[in-house]
This record gives sequence, C-alpha cells and structure tokens, in this order.
Amino acid sequence: MYPKIITISREFGSGGRTIGKQVAEKLGFAFYDKELVDKIALTSGLSKEYIEKKGEESTFGNSFLHILAMDTGLNYEVVPLQDQLFTLQSNIIKEIAEKEKCVIVGRCGDYVLRNREDCLKVHIFADDNFKEKRIVELYGEREENPKKRLQKKDKRRKNYYEYYTGQKWGYAHNYDICLNSSILGVEECGQIIIDLIKKKENKG
Amino acid sequence: MYPKIITISREFGSGGRTIGKQVAEKLGFAFYDKELVDKIALTSGLSKEYIEKKGEESTFGNSFLHILAMDTGLNYEVVPLQDQLFTLQSNIIKEIAEKEKCVIVGRCGDYVLRNREDCLKVHIFADDNFKEKRIVELYGEREENPKKRLQKKDKRRKNYYEYYTGQKWGYAHNYDICLNSSILGVEECGQIIIDLIKKKENKG
Repeated sequence: MYPKIITISREFGSGGRTIGKQVAEKLGFAFYDKELVDKIALTSGLSKEYIEKKGEESTFGNSFLHILAMDTGLNYEVVPLQDQLFTLQSNIIKEIAEKEKCVIVGRCGDYVLRNREDCLKVHIFADDNFKEKRIVELYGEREENPKKRLQKKDKRRKNYYEYYTGQKWGYAHNYDICLNSSILGVEECGQIIIDLIKKKENKG
Repeated sequence: MYPKIITISREFGSGGRTIGKQVAEKLGFAFYDKELVDKIALTSGLSKEYIEKKGEESTFGNSFLHILAMDTGLNYEVVPLQDQLFTLQSNIIKEIAEKEKCVIVGRCGDYVLRNREDCLKVHIFADDNFKEKRIVELYGEREENPKKRLQKKDKRRKNYYEYYTGQKWGYAHNYDICLNSSILGVEECGQIIIDLIKKKENKG
C-alpha cells in the first residue's frame, strides 16, 4: 500500500516544516501545521494562541497513558484541559487522515496514526550549529541566545511526545525514515520523501 | 564535500549487510563486513572466530571511555583483550577510510569515523515480524525461536555500541539517515543511499 499520509516530527530549527510544505506542494497533498491549529480552534472553541502554546506541551508528572489507566473518577475530578486538547487534536488528525492525502507536521502524528499502513512517518533532525543559525535567520535575534532557545523548545517537544506516547523522542524505531537536514540539505530531504512516495505510487 | 565512505549500523535481520553490499557494488566502492574480520585477523594474529564473536561484544560493566579515563596503572594490570580488539579494529577502519571509497558494516563505524565530513552514517532497522521471518529464511531454523535469537543478538550489539561509544544505539542523532527496511523495502533502502551519493557527487 502506498503512503497517502506523511507525518513529520521535527526538531526546532531543523527545517521540518519547510520540508513538509515542499513535499505537500510537489505531491499535491494537503498541508497541516498552522492549518491544524485553525481546525482545532474551530472545533474546540479554544483560542489559537492557547492551542499553539499548549498543543505541543504536556501536563508533565505521570504519563498521559498512566493517567488514563487510573480510576479517574476517584483521582481526578476533571481531565486537565491540555489532555483534552491532545485527545481532541488526535481525533482531528485521524479524521483528516481518513479524508484526504496530506502532510501533518508535529503533534505526535506518527503515534496517533501508528496503525495506518498508508502513513509514512518521517523524523527530521539536525546538528546544533545548523539549527542555531537557522532560527536566527528565520525568527530573528532574541534576548535569549539561540542555544538556550533550541534547548527550551526541544525539551518541551520531547516532554510532550514522551508524555503522550510513552515512546522516546528521536528514537529511529518510532519512524520509517529519519533524516539529518544539516548533512543532507533541507531541500534534498524533501526530495527523498517525494521520490519515495512517487515510486510507491507507481508500484501501486 | 560528497561522501566517499558509508558506514552501516544495522539491527540483526534488517537487511543492513545486503543493503551495504548493493550500495558498494552499484557505486564501485570497496565493501567491508567479513572482509574487515580478515584484515583484523591478519594484523592481530587473533582467530577469525574470536573476532567475529567478540568484535561486536563488549566487556560490559563500566563503559570503555570510563575505563580509559581511570588510572589504568593502578586499577587494571592489562587492558582486556576485547578492548584491545576494539582499539585495533577502530584503527583499521580509520586506515581503510583514509585509503579508499568504501562501505563499512557494523563495528561502531559511525562513531569511529564521526569526525570525517566525507562519511555518510546510515542506520538500518526493521519491524520484528519482518526480521524474524528474514533470519529464518537466511540462516535457517534453530532450536531457539526467532524472537529470542533477535533479542539476544541485538542486545549484544546494543551493549557493544553503548559501551564503546557512550551513545544510545538506534537514536537518530548518531546517524545521517535511518531507514526502516520493512516499510521501505531492502532494495529501496539501498537505492535511496545510492541516489543520495550520486547526487552529491554530481554537485562536487
């Protein structure tokens, strides 16, 4: 079965979003990154700002799966809003995947769609120097130095991923293909994915 | 700089050796797997059997780097033979890499050659079912079931890698590209690497 859904997990500054956009455009697939935020906002009534900030952050402490396994009636009066948000955005991701050919960036897409055989799971990472330079070029200087900004953002993404999936972030086995964009080049990473999908399409 | 050396780290049964051979043949690169064992045997005087068995096994306990950092004069009368073997085979890998275009399978090649910019570091992995089927097809049935054989062999490779490198085995960041051969296909994994090298060669 050829992939009609591509999930892209990415380190901050690695070019994962750019690669996803390139792949979607070249293949004529729908692209979901900020677009996913809009959809979630519309369904949930939550603000885009809240979803952007909390949609890739965990509530920490016990893992989400652990909390679900507990007798929530006794231990938790309400499910924390962030966990509700995770459930909601997972459902939206599943709906999108059911409906159309698409590229989905972040939000544990690989985990949410792990049982779909028509999903190609991509992880994009890069060396620190490359990422530091890239975030300054893209998002400008900040008071905080680029190294700290990277560490902070990736720590949050890592915690979020591990909290909701119970899997190790950046461990090859969670994905089908992992690419170092600082070595291979951002555009070349996109091309590898495009070629792969096209070949699979031709084989049916 | 385009890669003239390719290291292949691989899970047992994932097809990493086959992929390495395919890439070497198509690119006209030298291929080192068993060939490396011959070279090490010739230099060390150790038997091929010993090198095959111990050349990807660690002495466990403390990490190799930790042992090196200690006052070996006081704590160790002799460096364990397996650690000497690791040092020797690392030196041979470095010599080969200096001398010719090549594909090197296993033996922490990615780590040994981590400072070479002309080295492409590949990791091949696969789903358990695929690997179990493949080792039976390739190496026949054994008294021990395929699942146990896989677990045992990969545990040894993992321990060996982590002992000598201080890095986590199978963690994407150690490599430039990681490919799931059970999803992408063994031959297609080889083709991705070949295409990548050819494109880099054309760009100079």
